[in-house]
Amino acid sequence: MSTTAYLQFSTTGSPQDVLELLHREMPALGPHDVRVAMRYAPINPADLNFIEGNYGRPSNPPAVPGIEGSGEVVEIGSEVESLSVGDFVIPLHSGGTWTQQLVAPEGYFAKLPDRIDLVQASMLRINPVTAWRLLEDYVELVPGDWIVQNAANSGVGRALIQIARQRGIRTLNFVRRAELISELKDLGADEVLVDDDAGVDAARKIVEHNPPRLAANAVGGDSAVRLMDVLAAHGTMVTYGAMSRRSLKVPNKFLIFKDLSLRGLWVTKWFDRASHAEISEVLRPLATMVVEDNLVTAVDAVVPLKEFRRAVQRAQEGGRSGKVVIDLTAAD
Amino acid sequence: MSTTAYLQFSTTGSPQDVLELLHREMPALGPHDVRVAMRYAPINPADLNFIEGNYGRPSNPPAVPGIEGSGEVVEIGSEVESLSVGDFVIPLHSGGTWTQQLVAPEGYFAKLPDRIDLVQASMLRINPVTAWRLLEDYVELVPGDWIVQNAANSGVGRALIQIARQRGIRTLNFVRRAELISELKDLGADEVLVDDDAGVDAARKIVEHNPPRLAANAVGGDSAVRLMDVLAAHGTMVTYGAMSRRSLKVPNKFLIFKDLSLRGLWVTKWFDRASHAEISEVLRPLATMVVEDNLVTAVDAVVPLKEFRRAVQRAQEGGRSGKVVIDLTAAD
Repeated sequence: MSTTAYLQFSTTGSPQDVLELLHREMPALGPHDVRVAMRYAPINPADLNFIEGNYGRPSNPPAVPGIEGSGEVVEIGSEVESLSVGDFVIPLHSGGTWTQQLVAPEGYFAKLPDRIDLVQASMLRINPVTAWRLLEDYVELVPGDWIVQNAANSGVGRALIQIARQRGIRTLNFVRRAELISELKDLGADEVLVDDDAGVDAARKIVEHNPPRLAANAVGGDSAVRLMDVLAAHGTMVTYGAMSRRSLKVPNKFLIFKDLSLRGLWVTKWFDRASHAEISEVLRPLATMVVEDNLVTAVDAVVPLKEFRRAVQRAQEGGRSGKVVIDLTAAD
Repeated sequence: MSTTAYLQFSTTGSPQDVLELLHREMPALGPHDVRVAMRYAPINPADLNFIEGNYGRPSNPPAVPGIEGSGEVVEIGSEVESLSVGDFVIPLHSGGTWTQQLVAPEGYFAKLPDRIDLVQASMLRINPVTAWRLLEDYVELVPGDWIVQNAANSGVGRALIQIARQRGIRTLNFVRRAELISELKDLGADEVLVDDDAGVDAARKIVEHNPPRLAANAVGGDSAVRLMDVLAAHGTMVTYGAMSRRSLKVPNKFLIFKDLSLRGLWVTKWFDRASHAEISEVLRPLATMVVEDNLVTAVDAVVPLKEFRRAVQRAQEGGRSGKVVIDLTAAD
């Protein structure tokens, strides 16, 4: 038996108020189980929404939050075949990663390369896989094509820039603040514009002869209207987030006369449906990109587990330079 | 040479104000041309929008309006093969039907059965073909499936009810006024509900075990939200009209968590792309339905050409019992 520290909320509400650091005994392993010492877990907007009770799934407290994380296998059951002690892994299912230990059947985890940075690995499952699915599932793209996105500085936005670049797909990126332009260009963005009317005019000129057939929308409101404006006729806009917290507003001409298609993406649902092989097909190249420094997720702060209140507070502040990551290795 | 009377507008504006009844000499026929004595032409909302300058295409006045009509071939060029004098036809392209005569190459027209009612035939090309495309192009449907629509009393709405019924597809119909319920049930509608929150609650119960995967939206605003609410997860809503004249409002959960697809349909664009054979494949069964009284378009009034001001006025009034049709046969 072994003891673990973990975060839990017993009622939905503001994360600073409702999260508690608790301890429990972990079970002995069944023959197919592995014990993973969790190392890092990022704080995603979806985690905060889940704790607040504003997510696409019921929170059903008491619950341990955390849709992503990374760790190391420290013990394996007698019949485990795919994992060994010392392997670096990430959990493949949402929920429960904000803990120092996880015990689950081996199929619950995906193995990552030995050389991978575990802070980066902890943020691989949601944002980079969302970006990957955006590029794979909606429009057939060839090198030289443009795509357009808003919230280009978000986790998904940055992943999309880097993955698209590796495929020779050009990205037209809208950001709220002009000071992000050079940073995203350094990351590999082809064009970065401020998300306003002047930005749209400039964007239309840039892609005049080869307008994008795919738009990725994480904002909604007027920003999404700008994406629809820049899209080619018969193009597709995929909504995967709603940072403006407002309903999408769709001028009818875009559907009727311009023949746009509007779709949505929730990567959690994709993981629910995907086979272990399909998941590996995505994680393998993404992990390679991380190891080779071609896919870098920006980190604002790595905060020890016991300072979880500071961590969730920081994760809700504007002007961060990246994700807030909980360090689960520190003893409490 | 022969003279024709026709309607024209020289500047966009209110139809009553800008339409004029004019006369002109018609050209002699080229070898591939036919001369058609037009019989009837309906006044569609798209015609009014076109005259007002609010359509998906520039109006470019001076122009002869009219996207639909029916007529009879009265003269054929020396090399015409597909049509004979006496054939009943409809023009296949939008614009210019509000005239007593049309001269155009034979491929401009589609031949209809001899027994067809020419008032009904004049309204075949837009609304019934829109309904046909709604059923064909978006979701694979099998007998017993439900579909849902708003504006069920519109021209497309009524056509959709009748065509769906012939295929064994069940229709869940929203209308603004309760007094339409029995009328649409007589037409073959399976369920008719008032387009409000109580109507949605009732609709959800009716289709609880087999929710619709296709919704047809001609309204927008809250009415479209109700359709999205009733749709099955992964379902598709097709917008083909915007009677509320408001942007479509799409709560993000419908795209992200419910995985709905939003599409648009503009049948004029379909006609632009379709081959003559593809068009015949649709018009043939629809014409048969008209001949057999299985597809009936409601008519509010048939108004002689010289009373065109009264006709367009009536076409803009609420509470009509169907389309206003211009009778092009009456001498002026």
